[in-house]
Amino acid sequence: MRNLVGVPRIAYFGPSGTFTEMALDRFENLGAFDAPVERVVAASPPAALELLRNGEVDGAVVPIESSVEGSVPPTMDALSLGARLQIVAETELDIAFTVVTRPGVAPEDVATVGAYPVAAAQVRKWIADNLPAAEIVTASSNAGAAEDVASGKVDAGVATALAGQRLGLAVLADGVADFAGARTRFVLVTRPGPIPERTGCDRTSVILQLPNVPGSLVRAMTELATRGIDLTRIESRPTRKDYGTYFFHLDWVGHIDDPLVAEALKALHRFAQVRFLGSWAAVSEHGVPPVSDDDDAQWLERLRCGEE
Amino acid sequence: MRNLVGVPRIAYFGPSGTFTEMALDRFENLGAFDAPVERVVAASPPAALELLRNGEVDGAVVPIESSVEGSVPPTMDALSLGARLQIVAETELDIAFTVVTRPGVAPEDVATVGAYPVAAAQVRKWIADNLPAAEIVTASSNAGAAEDVASGKVDAGVATALAGQRLGLAVLADGVADFAGARTRFVLVTRPGPIPERTGCDRTSVILQLPNVPGSLVRAMTELATRGIDLTRIESRPTRKDYGTYFFHLDWVGHIDDPLVAEALKALHRFAQVRFLGSWAAVSEHGVPPVSDDDDAQWLERLRCGEE
Amino acid sequence: MRNLVGVPRIAYFGPSGTFTEMALDRFENLGAFDAPVERVVAASPPAALELLRNGEVDGAVVPIESSVEGSVPPTMDALSLGARLQIVAETELDIAFTVVTRPGVAPEDVATVGAYPVAAAQVRKWIADNLPAAEIVTASSNAGAAEDVASGKVDAGVATALAGQRLGLAVLADGVADFAGARTRFVLVTRPGPIPERTGCDRTSVILQLPNVPGSLVRAMTELATRGIDLTRIESRPTRKDYGTYFFHLDWVGHIDDPLVAEALKALHRFAQVRFLGSWAAVSEHGVPPVSDDDDAQWLERLRCGEE
Amino acid sequence: MRNLVGVPRIAYFGPSGTFTEMALDRFENLGAFDAPVERVVAASPPAALELLRNGEVDGAVVPIESSVEGSVPPTMDALSLGARLQIVAETELDIAFTVVTRPGVAPEDVATVGAYPVAAAQVRKWIADNLPAAEIVTASSNAGAAEDVASGKVDAGVATALAGQRLGLAVLADGVADFAGARTRFVLVTRPGPIPERTGCDRTSVILQLPNVPGSLVRAMTELATRGIDLTRIESRPTRKDYGTYFFHLDWVGHIDDPLVAEALKALHRFAQVRFLGSWAAVSEHGVPPVSDDDDAQWLERLRCGEE
Repeated sequence: MRNLVGVPRIAYFGPSGTFTEMALDRFENLGAFDAPVERVVAASPPAALELLRNGEVDGAVVPIESSVEGSVPPTMDALSLGARLQIVAETELDIAFTVVTRPGVAPEDVATVGAYPVAAAQVRKWIADNLPAAEIVTASSNAGAAEDVASGKVDAGVATALAGQRLGLAVLADGVADFAGARTRFVLVTRPGPIPERTGCDRTSVILQLPNVPGSLVRAMTELATRGIDLTRIESRPTRKDYGTYFFHLDWVGHIDDPLVAEALKALHRFAQVRFLGSWAAVSEHGVPPVSDDDDAQWLERLRCGEE
Repeated sequence: MRNLVGVPRIAYFGPSGTFTEMALDRFENLGAFDAPVERVVAASPPAALELLRNGEVDGAVVPIESSVEGSVPPTMDALSLGARLQIVAETELDIAFTVVTRPGVAPEDVATVGAYPVAAAQVRKWIADNLPAAEIVTASSNAGAAEDVASGKVDAGVATALAGQRLGLAVLADGVADFAGARTRFVLVTRPGPIPERTGCDRTSVILQLPNVPGSLVRAMTELATRGIDLTRIESRPTRKDYGTYFFHLDWVGHIDDPLVAEALKALHRFAQVRFLGSWAAVSEHGVPPVSDDDDAQWLERLRCGEE
Repeated sequence: MRNLVGVPRIAYFGPSGTFTEMALDRFENLGAFDAPVERVVAASPPAALELLRNGEVDGAVVPIESSVEGSVPPTMDALSLGARLQIVAETELDIAFTVVTRPGVAPEDVATVGAYPVAAAQVRKWIADNLPAAEIVTASSNAGAAEDVASGKVDAGVATALAGQRLGLAVLADGVADFAGARTRFVLVTRPGPIPERTGCDRTSVILQLPNVPGSLVRAMTELATRGIDLTRIESRPTRKDYGTYFFHLDWVGHIDDPLVAEALKALHRFAQVRFLGSWAAVSEHGVPPVSDDDDAQWLERLRCGEE
Repeated sequence: MRNLVGVPRIAYFGPSGTFTEMALDRFENLGAFDAPVERVVAASPPAALELLRNGEVDGAVVPIESSVEGSVPPTMDALSLGARLQIVAETELDIAFTVVTRPGVAPEDVATVGAYPVAAAQVRKWIADNLPAAEIVTASSNAGAAEDVASGKVDAGVATALAGQRLGLAVLADGVADFAGARTRFVLVTRPGPIPERTGCDRTSVILQLPNVPGSLVRAMTELATRGIDLTRIESRPTRKDYGTYFFHLDWVGHIDDPLVAEALKALHRFAQVRFLGSWAAVSEHGVPPVSDDDDAQWLERLRCGEE
């Protein structure tokens, strides 16, 4: 994950000051890279992933799922199409927004509030209660909302604390969130390569495209359920070809090196198109890991040798 | 579906000139109402449904699913929460956009293009190819994009043909769509009441909230699959409480008065929270209808009488 | 269940003194008949059922299942083929044998022991321990073994206490049984007619012939399992046509008038040949009855009326 | 499979002249042994298997399944209990009986016919049609019926051609069988040892004891069905402990060295008691072999290396 002069280049959904950049900080602090990182701003999650596919960066950090809004569609769609990429690590941030203004602007002076749509959806109630007269203007990112304030395009912005500080903006309100406990998960993505080692607390993610025959979805779910695999996310996204055809984005507990996960992957591959997005360490306990296969495999070996 | 003076009041996602209003036209032409309709503009799909819940209108027309973008999240979420509402009819429109400008504006003069986000997602490539220098500015609806052009807020707008005509705008391009064959389904929603009669080509829609135990989703899918019920849509939406808890929006072929559909509804109700969104005539063939139960029911009756 | 002069004629697997006759006694004592019964001896369970099919009797009592030996194959096969018959009641007897001799015969004088094969299988160990020198000679029934003793054909017989008494034989040993707690279930069979009323503790029995396609058996089991129907017996019997084709004899908890049992019967009938053998009161608690459908059915009705 | 002086000792269900001995001939002709065999007569299938468990013989030949009567219960029960044994080969014989008498005995002189119960069940109609006055007397085996004729115990016997020839008996009728095409499968059993090599046309046999929880049988069937394993036999036998508890005897197409069979065995072992009876070459095509796992396994390996 290094560039030619030994510095890994990592794209992230920017500009400077987004939650995504905060997630990149976190990855650095957690030791995800073995050298200082050169940060490359991308205008959107798909743009970050495209830089990675093109070889212009060695990794990309993008938001993938919000506890409030669900999967981040641009990220999901960009992972579904184009060359396969691989998730190697995750981190989660508590999401609360900072509403910023230019110094000296009072709440009653706020006629327009810039907000990234995902953010707008999470602070709508707060704005209605606190800035009832303000019109919401779409910003290109959470940090972009701060930039729009700094440039005078809007009176206030729903931003990150970091973006406000960097631009020297005033804080109208901090910790703003309509839904308590909102969190967003960010992932570090690379081109396909060796899979991070199994830790015992892992997440595996795949995108399935099922054959258009009755019972395909039941079959897929059954391949997981019979092996005791704990599905933690299932989201469907239309394939954009016709009604009723979907990509299914699945996350489950376990690692490709868990024998039952390997079995399940092969079983799905037998009848469906499976895009493997990776197995990596989960940031927290998130369900029931697959049971060990050791006893059963040893029993089978003993049978094969006639010892049992 | 009438108001006090005999005129049904129907809310729609406006302003005037949206695709949704065109869908309302279609419902009128198809005879969905037995009296002239009074149209009530709502600023968003949830707002239209809220007017209905409040009793301010008798029905609402909202977009529910795009063949390109999948379910329309604000509609889905507004149907999931609050008092139960009921879908009684559907129609589908081919979706292609009209890019409008003020008369006299040349393509090379377009620095900003207003677009509703759903529209922006469907014309992104066209804009990159044809108006590469233009910045996309978020509009509140497709008709709103035309209004933003008329008011001078933006130079061009991704709008409907109808909206452009009403405002006397010039047409820069017609039939604009990155994805050929894009369609959107619109539904007519009422408060709960008698269910439209079974036609033999019907759609049933429910929202499921499954108990948080392993195998719930397999169980739900199995209740449908064993009864030969053809699932035409499954979309998950986070419940906004925690990662991994979802509402599942399901559409299938058939009507609550099909015995196997009735069985399936009861079976789902046995272990899950089921919000029934209605059974109504599908606009086109869309899968395999449930088989008849007649032979089996008659056989059972003969057994009960000892005749077989 | 009466003959022309008001006396029901009931066939049973005889001769006089069999366990089956004891079961017929039990049915009489329990009030299964509303008039004194005329008993008609049949040489085998199939013969008893054939008398019933021919109209020569109004009912038949036959053994159907042993806790030690499983289903009684001649009974099962005779219920599978020919005109459909219907089970209307059951009773169970503890099975322990009485070894009888002619008066004055000592154990050491016993060179031959008559035994019906089902009985022989249940006393083999006792004979090996107590009459090690004796040869087992096949008898036509448990009572027939006593007759063979009386006629001098064998020295001792594995019989019922009743048969020994009636023939004035001596008792060499009583309560003989290799397997403690052995019981046999007997059923009262009639031609098809009204089904006994649901009691809440009922048994339903069917014979399935599944289509010869992969997954048929899983499908059948799933139709029962998804409805929470508690299967208490499953036995396969070859159809006698080719390897691998079977009749499946299934018993489960519940009554055809339990809505979920009715659903399951119809579901099985949809793809398999189903011979319904009846629903009747079980003699003892034997599993989990099907849940009520009331709540779900009422919910469905409210939906249909738009009340919920 | 050899004794101390280089001659394998093989027990069979005798006496001399049984179909089982004919099956042993067949195994010899097919080269199942690499040295001449010393034949050891056993009085019953369980007795033959007990000699094997005790180490008194190196192998045993027993009948296991009849196309008319289904599994041979004494064989099945003897394989279920006691130390595990292993089936290593099979052969099938067309079953038609030879009715023998002492020379000079005319059909009208036949008052008693000796028959092994399995045989009696397959010639009942022939006897009723051809020897209507004759009483059936139970013999200990098909060859034993011929011995009973020779010793004068009965007038005629339902035997094998071989047994009649060896005893110099006359043939009253040949090729006697109520059911056309009746066949019986015989197996060669050894103590556990290396498993015969996979041929691509194999049979695997197991005995399952399922936990007494609802859905166990569906789960077991599903583990096979999801892996496309073709079940060719399922027979239940009571465990002799209580009603409703069974051993399930399953045969399916494939070999323990087929990856999907290995998976299925491990999956069953995860929740049930599994007695593996062996994998061996089937004598004829008998269903759909498991699909290869190669593509899926290679895909998985490429994922693991980051090559795909």
